[in-house]
Amino acid sequence: MANTSPSPSPSSEGRILQFPPFQSLVDDGFWRRLSALKLDTLRTDQSPIFISGFYAPCSHSSVSNYLALHSESLPSDSNMESPLERVRGNRNKCPIPGTLLNTNTLESFRSLDRESLLKAEAKRILEDIYSGRAEEDPSVLLRFLIISFADLKKWGFYYWCAFPALVLDPPATLLNLKPASEALNSDEVVSLSAACNEWRNSSVTTDVPFFLVSISPNSGAILRPLKDWELCKDEGQKVLFGFYDPCHLPTNPGWPLRNFLAFISLRWNVEKINFFCYREKQGTADMRLSLVGEALVSPPSAWRDPECIPKAVGWEPKGGKLMPRFVSLAESMDPERLAVSAAELNLKLMRWRTLPSLDLDMLSGVRCLLLGVGTLGCEVARILMAWGVRKMTLVDSGRVAMSNPVRQSLYTFQDCLNGGEFKANAAARNLKQIFPAVEAEGIVMPIPMPGHPISAKETDTVLESCKRLEDLIESHDVTFLLTDTRESRWLPTLICSNKNKIAITAALGFDSYLVMRHGAGPMPTAPGPCGTATDVESAGPRLGCYFCNDVVAPIDSVSNRTLDQQCTVTRPGLAPIASALAVELLVGLLHHPNKINAKGENAGSIVSSSEETPLGILPHQIRGSISQSSQLTLLGHSSHSCTACSQAVVTEYRQRGLEFMLQAINQPTYLEDLTGLTELMNSVGSCQLDWIDDDAADGDEIDDF
Amino acid sequence: MANTSPSPSPSSEGRILQFPPFQSLVDDGFWRRLSALKLDTLRTDQSPIFISGFYAPCSHSSVSNYLALHSESLPSDSNMESPLERVRGNRNKCPIPGTLLNTNTLESFRSLDRESLLKAEAKRILEDIYSGRAEEDPSVLLRFLIISFADLKKWGFYYWCAFPALVLDPPATLLNLKPASEALNSDEVVSLSAACNEWRNSSVTTDVPFFLVSISPNSGAILRPLKDWELCKDEGQKVLFGFYDPCHLPTNPGWPLRNFLAFISLRWNVEKINFFCYREKQGTADMRLSLVGEALVSPPSAWRDPECIPKAVGWEPKGGKLMPRFVSLAESMDPERLAVSAAELNLKLMRWRTLPSLDLDMLSGVRCLLLGVGTLGCEVARILMAWGVRKMTLVDSGRVAMSNPVRQSLYTFQDCLNGGEFKANAAARNLKQIFPAVEAEGIVMPIPMPGHPISAKETDTVLESCKRLEDLIESHDVTFLLTDTRESRWLPTLICSNKNKIAITAALGFDSYLVMRHGAGPMPTAPGPCGTATDVESAGPRLGCYFCNDVVAPIDSVSNRTLDQQCTVTRPGLAPIASALAVELLVGLLHHPNKINAKGENAGSIVSSSEETPLGILPHQIRGSISQSSQLTLLGHSSHSCTACSQAVVTEYRQRGLEFMLQAINQPTYLEDLTGLTELMNSVGSCQLDWIDDDAADGDEIDDF
Repeated sequence: MANTSPSPSPSSEGRILQFPPFQSLVDDGFWRRLSALKLDTLRTDQSPIFISGFYAPCSHSSVSNYLALHSESLPSDSNMESPLERVRGNRNKCPIPGTLLNTNTLESFRSLDRESLLKAEAKRILEDIYSGRAEEDPSVLLRFLIISFADLKKWGFYYWCAFPALVLDPPATLLNLKPASEALNSDEVVSLSAACNEWRNSSVTTDVPFFLVSISPNSGAILRPLKDWELCKDEGQKVLFGFYDPCHLPTNPGWPLRNFLAFISLRWNVEKINFFCYREKQGTADMRLSLVGEALVSPPSAWRDPECIPKAVGWEPKGGKLMPRFVSLAESMDPERLAVSAAELNLKLMRWRTLPSLDLDMLSGVRCLLLGVGTLGCEVARILMAWGVRKMTLVDSGRVAMSNPVRQSLYTFQDCLNGGEFKANAAARNLKQIFPAVEAEGIVMPIPMPGHPISAKETDTVLESCKRLEDLIESHDVTFLLTDTRESRWLPTLICSNKNKIAITAALGFDSYLVMRHGAGPMPTAPGPCGTATDVESAGPRLGCYFCNDVVAPIDSVSNRTLDQQCTVTRPGLAPIASALAVELLVGLLHHPNKINAKGENAGSIVSSSEETPLGILPHQIRGSISQSSQLTLLGHSSHSCTACSQAVVTEYRQRGLEFMLQAINQPTYLEDLTGLTELMNSVGSCQLDWIDDDAADGDEIDDF
Repeated sequence: MANTSPSPSPSSEGRILQFPPFQSLVDDGFWRRLSALKLDTLRTDQSPIFISGFYAPCSHSSVSNYLALHSESLPSDSNMESPLERVRGNRNKCPIPGTLLNTNTLESFRSLDRESLLKAEAKRILEDIYSGRAEEDPSVLLRFLIISFADLKKWGFYYWCAFPALVLDPPATLLNLKPASEALNSDEVVSLSAACNEWRNSSVTTDVPFFLVSISPNSGAILRPLKDWELCKDEGQKVLFGFYDPCHLPTNPGWPLRNFLAFISLRWNVEKINFFCYREKQGTADMRLSLVGEALVSPPSAWRDPECIPKAVGWEPKGGKLMPRFVSLAESMDPERLAVSAAELNLKLMRWRTLPSLDLDMLSGVRCLLLGVGTLGCEVARILMAWGVRKMTLVDSGRVAMSNPVRQSLYTFQDCLNGGEFKANAAARNLKQIFPAVEAEGIVMPIPMPGHPISAKETDTVLESCKRLEDLIESHDVTFLLTDTRESRWLPTLICSNKNKIAITAALGFDSYLVMRHGAGPMPTAPGPCGTATDVESAGPRLGCYFCNDVVAPIDSVSNRTLDQQCTVTRPGLAPIASALAVELLVGLLHHPNKINAKGENAGSIVSSSEETPLGILPHQIRGSISQSSQLTLLGHSSHSCTACSQAVVTEYRQRGLEFMLQAINQPTYLEDLTGLTELMNSVGSCQLDWIDDDAADGDEIDDF
């Protein structure tokens, strides 16, 4: 470098070379991505994760640059390998390999042996220097480490970055350090500036933070990769060892020089090292900010020993102290988004250990139709939401009465005022107030009922309700039957049976409950070539529906009943239990490979560790009694005389449609005639009377209202 | 009446005597009282009820008076006899006997045979005339009837009043009718006016609406009771038949005259009847409003036949039509009061048939302390409220987190904003928004836990919490243990055990639950003379507490646990089930004659129709699993090594108080040493490790948070 070599200034000559610490900047995206990764993929796994940090040369005269961690620093779901290759050629994002150790608990985080971790990283850097890997890919010289604990519940993150630097002993001595614009002659400055910009503008080299500057005697400068060292040396040209310097200080080179010096010294045995701290301003090389310096390095001889554990420093200080950092995203996050994440948290945690096969995406997409939004409907909606179900349609024609809020968990006193809001609307709105992301729609509509004759002028309205109910069931995946009378469950049962749609019934007696899933319908949804359903019938007995055990058709059960017969006279604990079991039954069913065709299982009938049923057995019916503290599972097959799901009824419904419904509504004996129940009852005689008396106590008729 | 007899005016001479209908005025108090009577006392009973109506003379020149029904028209709870005697001597409330037929259904109301009912009442009036009862108590001449259906759910009342009047055939003929001031001479007017005021001012006669006016030849008038008829007749004085006339019309006498004429004609065989329609103005007799008239009456001879069913009229028209009336109290009632009535409705209806022995007053007075207001606490509070429990204190130190509302049924999204409200406060407030009459108080306080050592400077605060917890448990009847860790249940268990207070525990595993009631404590609440508890111990084995089966003392179970171990990883249906069972267990216990000392019953162990347990069996523990669709009852006696309820621990606690607590908190092995568990464990060896691993899956440790 002859006449251009910078003359040592009094202030820098012979002093120990010192480096301001590298700084990390971890953005919210990184933590969000880590949260998702932890919840969905890593779960309890604490293995180190290969990540990427990004940095760029300092680009401002008074602000140093950071090592930044973004969401793309972390692996993608599909590929847990290092994400380095995904982002190349971005001049502001020179990728640096890093390792993330995310612990499962705060205690583990605190008790990590940081000293050993740092030494292990330093050892890897040393190995990469000797192996030549650092010459091929110099970014490994900046290898970093981050340890963290993610409190996913509170969106709080404890973390600590380290930029491991091999400690030279004795330390390097700085012989001189000047702005490049002063250290070089003006031709060299111009040429070097141009060469740097060329290097930075090429997508191949722009994110390569270490390089050689070769300056010819005629002041022509070019930038070359490290692996050209032998060539440069042989050519006898002056060489500066250049690096992207994140530091803005005119008095010191940045942190990356530390391992670079060790590399140059160890790899190439250079002791007097001319270095070039490359810095920019407004996106182009700036030779007044960039520094040129000269350092004397004598590497510790111990490093030659393959077993050597090098001394290292690099844990990032916080406010001058060695301590971890904490960031809370909760405060900065959009509350609704936070609510969504939080609601998913418990569900995703289930997949960590207990239920890895839980299909939360499926659940969030399931469209549920709730017929009746009383004690059962409110509770079912809540528990569906807790399971992550997002799409619900709530049907009820009633208004919120004063007696409702203490038992119907979606309503408050406010909803009862001024005559009461429509339950369907109040329930949908209140669900959103609990969880803004739920897609709940309320539909104010009565369910047409057989045996409740209607006048001619009502016919159009009722048939419209029939049609609307058909459309609703068709456009949902699951229908819950949660109304307060037996007869209001008939039409939805029939429609579900015809469409092979999942139907779940919950019904309450005074202190007993029934929860069941209906079996598949008697015929294929699209009629086969022969128009019959032999294939379905021959597949084995279908599970029954709510009406399969009945020997009378559903009739008007509301008129002429005393108040205690009309109202929900049930023990208050009943509805929460039945509702919970109904939703759990659905979740089990949706996770069964055979879905609606899954056989009914009874308690104790299968091994609990069955792989196919991680959620447990999948019963057909669950009946329980609070007063007896008992619960049992039952299995009932479909009846050929069923007024709601037998082939005779479904066939008639398919052929005659609304006309059929109208007849069922207006003519109480029609369904019994159609299914042969009339004949059956005649043969049984007066037994029927006893049965009807028992009905109320049996829990199949007095439900909620 | 000689020269004073009014000369027939052209307009009234010989015309048929006509009467404007009597009118009823039923006030809200009547319906409220009827509602209470129906719900609490009558229940399904439809027997006729004897009631009282009240009326007074017309007191305004342009407004007729009514027959009024007030709350005191109905019988009191303690006495279903006619309430007539309760209100006598009130000048504005002449009591009239009536009969109320309140049906159980609207259909029954509509199908009542009103014609027959009216005739039956008319027949009773006829009988009272013949028997002389009407002479003794002329109010029976105004005997009335009201039929009703009370829709207690909607606070709507359908009703129809009848004022049965015997129909004279041929009808009475009005010979003349004039204001008394015109019909009588001025001396007579003055004298009659004074006599009327005297009658009305005497508490004995003021509410006697029928009387005789005897006018002496020197124009002196006096009023006499009907039974003086024979005397009056014999004295040869002029007699007017007087009655309190509710009617204001100058052209017609009021309705009471109808049966009065029939009475006079039948009882005394008078055919030409001089009557006096007594009316007032501003509380005194008004002779310009009062009328004097003369009518010709010939009673139907058929009435002499004892079997005769007399023709009668009297169903009150509504707007000129014969139809029932409907009144809705819902609109006029204070909404909060309406809410209270409505909330009680379902509970009271239970007593109609299913649970006559249900003690709702007891439940509304029970003071419940809920420790923990998470998934379990929210649901328990709701179900307690549905059972009519009004007094609740909710203790929690946490704030509502974003993940809470979808599972913790008392919170909404709004409660999570700005860092989240304290759960205890939000829960108490939101309970009131559901049901304004609930007396819920939130207390933000942590539960001190054993094995969670505290620093010296925390000691005062923690001991204060201990003291406060003692006070809270002391001032409540029941403590629910609903916190999320095992160790936080220890101190309340111990305090309840010491005080013999009812403690109910609910705890969740991933898909299993435990609900139990703790047994009584090992010693009497007030130490006996010998300071020992031999008498209690010898009474038979005590039921165990939550810790009785444990072989390790409760320790810090929160620190150093992964997120899924820290959070509520439970199936969403679990908490509603466990909460419901916990409340139902309490309600059963409170209805058991032995309360906390009641033996533990197992499913199937007793006859279901047991009179002593109308709410069913009273188990000690209920354990269930959703995945196995199973539920079973267990019975476990107290352990002598129990760290929470054994005599050793309770004795130590009594003797050393807060000092003992502090040692338990700070010294993890203290409780085990004290109870001999340390020794036990040493003898068992390494088995303990397996047990701890199973713990999480066993449901006793991971609860809600």
